[in-house]
Amino acid sequence: MDNHTITETSSTNPFEPLLSLRWENDRLLMLDQRLLPEEIVMLELFTAEQVFEGIQSMKVRGAPAIGISAAYGVVLGSWEYKGEDASAWMKHVLKVSAYLAQSRPTAVNLFWALDRMNQKAHQLAEQEGSTDSRNEALLAEAIAIHAEDEEVCRQIGEHALPLFKDGMGVLTHCNAGGLATAKYGTALAPMYLAHEQGIHLKVYADETRPVLQGARLTAFELQQAGIDVTLLCDNMAGMVMSKGWIQAVIVGADRVAANGDVANKIGTYSVAVLARAHGIPFYVACPLSTIDLATATGADIPIEERTADEVTVSFGKRTAPQDIKVFNPAFDVTPNEYVTAIITEKGIVYPSYSEELPKLFVD
Amino acid sequence: MDNHTITETSSTNPFEPLLSLRWENDRLLMLDQRLLPEEIVMLELFTAEQVFEGIQSMKVRGAPAIGISAAYGVVLGSWEYKGEDASAWMKHVLKVSAYLAQSRPTAVNLFWALDRMNQKAHQLAEQEGSTDSRNEALLAEAIAIHAEDEEVCRQIGEHALPLFKDGMGVLTHCNAGGLATAKYGTALAPMYLAHEQGIHLKVYADETRPVLQGARLTAFELQQAGIDVTLLCDNMAGMVMSKGWIQAVIVGADRVAANGDVANKIGTYSVAVLARAHGIPFYVACPLSTIDLATATGADIPIEERTADEVTVSFGKRTAPQDIKVFNPAFDVTPNEYVTAIITEKGIVYPSYSEELPKLFVD
Repeated sequence: MDNHTITETSSTNPFEPLLSLRWENDRLLMLDQRLLPEEIVMLELFTAEQVFEGIQSMKVRGAPAIGISAAYGVVLGSWEYKGEDASAWMKHVLKVSAYLAQSRPTAVNLFWALDRMNQKAHQLAEQEGSTDSRNEALLAEAIAIHAEDEEVCRQIGEHALPLFKDGMGVLTHCNAGGLATAKYGTALAPMYLAHEQGIHLKVYADETRPVLQGARLTAFELQQAGIDVTLLCDNMAGMVMSKGWIQAVIVGADRVAANGDVANKIGTYSVAVLARAHGIPFYVACPLSTIDLATATGADIPIEERTADEVTVSFGKRTAPQDIKVFNPAFDVTPNEYVTAIITEKGIVYPSYSEELPKLFVD
Repeated sequence: MDNHTITETSSTNPFEPLLSLRWENDRLLMLDQRLLPEEIVMLELFTAEQVFEGIQSMKVRGAPAIGISAAYGVVLGSWEYKGEDASAWMKHVLKVSAYLAQSRPTAVNLFWALDRMNQKAHQLAEQEGSTDSRNEALLAEAIAIHAEDEEVCRQIGEHALPLFKDGMGVLTHCNAGGLATAKYGTALAPMYLAHEQGIHLKVYADETRPVLQGARLTAFELQQAGIDVTLLCDNMAGMVMSKGWIQAVIVGADRVAANGDVANKIGTYSVAVLARAHGIPFYVACPLSTIDLATATGADIPIEERTADEVTVSFGKRTAPQDIKVFNPAFDVTPNEYVTAIITEKGIVYPSYSEELPKLFVD
């Protein structure tokens, strides 16, 4: 695969947050998050296959950003159909979509975005119009998904903000920030809004092994924004809580089941258990597109296991013996009883989640 | 400092475990554990300063191995005194010992071993004899400390063994293995003995950020011994427990206070809280030299904080933004209420530790 790359530096526009995704001139620009914080490289993606590879290899990550990427992937794939048969066009689009669905199994936003693109394709196939006009409308849908995510993140931040008071210590795990979404993030959105309003939060970022999204992304984007952030190894969270430095934990989610069980980056469950043991509230921030009422409980969420290399040689140096057995799940499930509240663009939801979550989907 | 190095390979003697320390031909051979598992390098140390540096930079680590190293450091330092005045000799030895005491603050075995060397020096200074004979007797004391540690570890393993049954999953954190001691280790001793007796334990080794002693040392030494070991990132411990894969946790200790509070490698406290939440026993294995009745509680144990670089650039590549704030404590304290039992060379101690620990020191 030939990924043309554009190398940019953060100094080109220091007042704008770094965006994980941009649609410009008929191609998707994807920030290669695996190279952060040392290099800021935007990949130019022209095909669905390139988008698939970007998702699978975690160049883009974060449930909302994966969904947006997949939507653009469908657009890029749709252009490969050169005929004028509406039904054949639709079948082609559904095939591209089914292909992209295999890129990562856990984040439900991926399936949510593809489903929305599929519905649009169905609708377009039933209307009059040329392939060009259908492709254009499909692109408009992807752009809408992208734009809505930014607005949704801002709303999540506004709903979450009253939970945080000046001077509080807040711990987060992985990266549910601007880089995981269109902008602002989910778990980090209240931190950005607090900062805008002069409310000082002392953020502790778990580094989040094996891929170090906390060290490379969360610490980086909060530092860039001038927010007070301290980096921790994952195993220090308990000690920091025992010192009384943490008044709240907030994380994102890759999928929330109908009963409020939360699949999120590996280690989230340990943080939730530790928060409970220290009497600290544990919040989950996510858009409605992350809540999957079709998944009854966390036990029904497929947990992706990734390669041993992420653990043994992940930063260019071997740090474990050759041929060592490794267990490397990308996610874990936090049972609903550990979740103090779920913060969405429609407001804060408290237990019972089985009763309250469905209400979010009623207009 | 000029450290002559000898590069060896593990294949020279595949049936013997790799030893962290050897005294041969008037110098201390110290395995550079920071280079494991990729390189096996024995450093030749000729001076107390070299031993100090080896301890401080964690070329040797593990409370018992630090104590043994320091004892040999006193021996090497004693040779610098060239006179024949017993009192001046003793003052010189005490000065070397006080210097070595500053190499690391948390592991009590360091102070225990230095104290024992000091007592020997006092005793020797009061007897007839030449400086040569005193130096020889001081060396004999260091060799005794070294030999006793091997025997003590074996006894710890024998006392611990009945706690483990065939087929159990056992989680350990950091490295309290042969590399942390003269041989066998403390927490790993029952695993070696179980293996000798054909009892199959399924060991899970936390990688133990930031220095990765679990990945580089525990996984390595158990793999070398043919023991079933699976490597985990620290943040996976909770998930693995929730799956029912772990029936016991066993760790070492750097210092145990009189009330049974345990200072051990950072992350131990989180593991203890997780074990409690899952109803899994949490065992601490350590020699009597790690139990410090002069330290009332864990709050009185100084916790070493180490450089940010260990967290931000430890894989040989920068993995966090420049100038990011980092909290990097080397240890944490696990309160006694989380400790199911403490296993020593004199047997297993159950709560109340304030009552039971002092009994160990009565002959």
